Amino acid sequence: MSHVRKALTLFEKVNGRCFHPHWPLSYKSPNHLPPQTRLLSSISSSATSTMSNTAGLVIPCKAAVAWEAGKPLVIQQVEVAPPQAMEVRIKIKYTSLCHTDLYFWEAKDQTPLFPRIFGHEAAGIVESVGEGVAGLEVGDHVLPVFTGECGECAHCKSEESNMCNLLRINTDRGVMLSDGKSRFSINGTPINHFVGTSTFSEYTVVHSGCLAKINPLAPLDKVCVLSCGISTGLGATLNVAKPKKGASVAIFGLGAVGLAAAEGARIAGASRIIGVDFNPGRFEEAKKFGVTEFLNPKDYDKPVQEVIAEMTNGGVDRSVECTGSIRAMISAFECVHDGWGVAVLVGVPSKEAVFMTKPINVLNERTLKGTFFGNYKPRTDLPTVVDMYMNKKLELDKFITHRLPFSEINKAFELMVKGEGLRCIISMED
Amino acid sequence: MSHVRKALTLFEKVNGRCFHPHWPLSYKSPNHLPPQTRLLSSISSSATSTMSNTAGLVIPCKAAVAWEAGKPLVIQQVEVAPPQAMEVRIKIKYTSLCHTDLYFWEAKDQTPLFPRIFGHEAAGIVESVGEGVAGLEVGDHVLPVFTGECGECAHCKSEESNMCNLLRINTDRGVMLSDGKSRFSINGTPINHFVGTSTFSEYTVVHSGCLAKINPLAPLDKVCVLSCGISTGLGATLNVAKPKKGASVAIFGLGAVGLAAAEGARIAGASRIIGVDFNPGRFEEAKKFGVTEFLNPKDYDKPVQEVIAEMTNGGVDRSVECTGSIRAMISAFECVHDGWGVAVLVGVPSKEAVFMTKPINVLNERTLKGTFFGNYKPRTDLPTVVDMYMNKKLELDKFITHRLPFSEINKAFELMVKGEGLRCIISMED
Repeated sequence: MSHVRKALTLFEKVNGRCFHPHWPLSYKSPNHLPPQTRLLSSISSSATSTMSNTAGLVIPCKAAVAWEAGKPLVIQQVEVAPPQAMEVRIKIKYTSLCHTDLYFWEAKDQTPLFPRIFGHEAAGIVESVGEGVAGLEVGDHVLPVFTGECGECAHCKSEESNMCNLLRINTDRGVMLSDGKSRFSINGTPINHFVGTSTFSEYTVVHSGCLAKINPLAPLDKVCVLSCGISTGLGATLNVAKPKKGASVAIFGLGAVGLAAAEGARIAGASRIIGVDFNPGRFEEAKKFGVTEFLNPKDYDKPVQEVIAEMTNGGVDRSVECTGSIRAMISAFECVHDGWGVAVLVGVPSKEAVFMTKPINVLNERTLKGTFFGNYKPRTDLPTVVDMYMNKKLELDKFITHRLPFSEINKAFELMVKGEGLRCIISMED
Repeated sequence: MSHVRKALTLFEKVNGRCFHPHWPLSYKSPNHLPPQTRLLSSISSSATSTMSNTAGLVIPCKAAVAWEAGKPLVIQQVEVAPPQAMEVRIKIKYTSLCHTDLYFWEAKDQTPLFPRIFGHEAAGIVESVGEGVAGLEVGDHVLPVFTGECGECAHCKSEESNMCNLLRINTDRGVMLSDGKSRFSINGTPINHFVGTSTFSEYTVVHSGCLAKINPLAPLDKVCVLSCGISTGLGATLNVAKPKKGASVAIFGLGAVGLAAAEGARIAGASRIIGVDFNPGRFEEAKKFGVTEFLNPKDYDKPVQEVIAEMTNGGVDRSVECTGSIRAMISAFECVHDGWGVAVLVGVPSKEAVFMTKPINVLNERTLKGTFFGNYKPRTDLPTVVDMYMNKKLELDKFITHRLPFSEINKAFELMVKGEGLRCIISMED
């Protein structure tokens, strides 16, 4: 409660001192804006080569600020400080919304951190780089990622892990690593970052280890979805479950992440992709992602793992769990074939959940694996995923079901709350 | 209870009809034996080339028969029928004793099957082959294995599995697959087989898919230990955990299987091998197997997985569980490092046991795998393991702590019940 109160206090302060209620929604022409904002506007419309003109300066720009749990974001002017050592300031071109944003915006059963700028699935262009940044230059096209790759720690040096010690996701932190401060402020009041990305802002500052430099020809309004959920599902299948050509694969949960896991199975040449979901309405859409059969656990009076075992002569070769339900996790493990079955857990369940199974299910040569961000190392691997799209191996367009201008970002939240569509692309310049 | 009664009935019947109380222990010279047995004796002492003279005939020979749960085996004459289609009759040269023999001999919490000839860790020579057997000839040196490789089923065709559909271990079956009959009898009373091997007999009949043909130069009194426990532990590490050179490995349980897992870690070049056991007396012996550090969970007031995490900066790279204790299984999983840790379960716990862990332990990119017979395909892979010994890569001699003549097989049971030593080699000809 003390945190909620703190957030309200800040909200009230901002309302009283610096919040311009008419401004965000009427923000259309640079001529109506204060001088500082005109600088931003000129940046927005200028070519890449002029971007570095703002290097070292505070950039005022539009951001969608969350002041309170579950309340609509407020699009307003924020000041974005220059990047410090090892940081990069980027201009966000497109962002999309992912369940993690929704979860922390709703702030149920957690320590809320407001005011905050959410957003972590996006694509942008480097505006300026801080001291010591290597491999990134003004104008580079990048995907910001909620987790990073320092390149130095044991995880980064391991071929098997992507859970960087330095830059691993931290949802509790609202500041930058280097100095424990925020780069966002509104008239001197700091605004919290979110998972080091805060992409619901025209400009944001990101640790250089959390930026994947991608093919500059890739359409940013498509590949922006690769910076979180789609890569998570895709990598869970391609990097962790690794089905062979002709394999059978069960996907638990046919949301965007699950469908990305199905897309991975399709790319791998799976012969059967069994989608499991409580919502039969999702099957039609799922066919586009290669799902060949559909199972609703509610239609059976026995555990779905038994149904799958009967359908597949003993179990599927691989399964990927993308719901976060502990029951689905257990079913996903127990539905794989003994001898060679591999189950991969992606979804994050409640803290109280306990995974339980009879040891014989393990001893019979099944494998249980967990994955984080599809085991992709952000900087090393995401460029390759973008190239998979450019080479038409990976299909992304089918994930994009809605598009909205930044001014209507709250509608994107409404769509997600209702469970409508897969990904809504928010254009920062519209 | 009805099964116990049935076993007792058989025992009494045999006692009354065909059991010779003075014979087994006084069995020393062939001249004292009935004519049928003399044939056996001449086989025992003859060269390989003469073995096939007995092809097609019933062979009378010595076997150690278990008549009742937990009671001493009785060494007595049994008749061994010729091998049927796809079967092979072998002369056992050396056998050893493994916990699984002890477990089914004690027959606690299970459906007992008596009278029975136990034994499944052995080495022998082919005496004759049944119809349709390919790849095995009279005189071949072989290891009989409690599980098989038919070569035709989905498991045999999978590179990942060794759990043959046709010949997978079946501890409830006391007869041969082809005709549902036993090849052992005493004056017409059938004696049950055990896991298709029954190596506590001078001759036994085994499905050809359960025989690994090995290098004829390999000393059978050493490599006989490879047909069960040692391969199980070794393969758990080398084939499933797969530690890299320099890795840290925790081994739970420092019995023969656990020490074989440690031997695997030593061969793989592990830099730290942490042995976990409630018996500190085992550490000294364990050093011979490459164990570098010892942990007794009783010495700490926190879970051993936490102790290991502190010792290893977050967890070991690999762990292998060889106790069958559910608590050890959970500790073995939770003590591996996030990002890349792999835990392998070998030990078989009680049927009521449930494996439980928080999902985050999986999601943080740990892997849990179970193995059966170290994932070795008996026919395909065991010859290579024998060659590892011949090439001095694998050390076997240190597993052999006792030797006894067949006539003293009950002493081998006593040693195992007391937990003394690792492997006791029983010579069939002494």
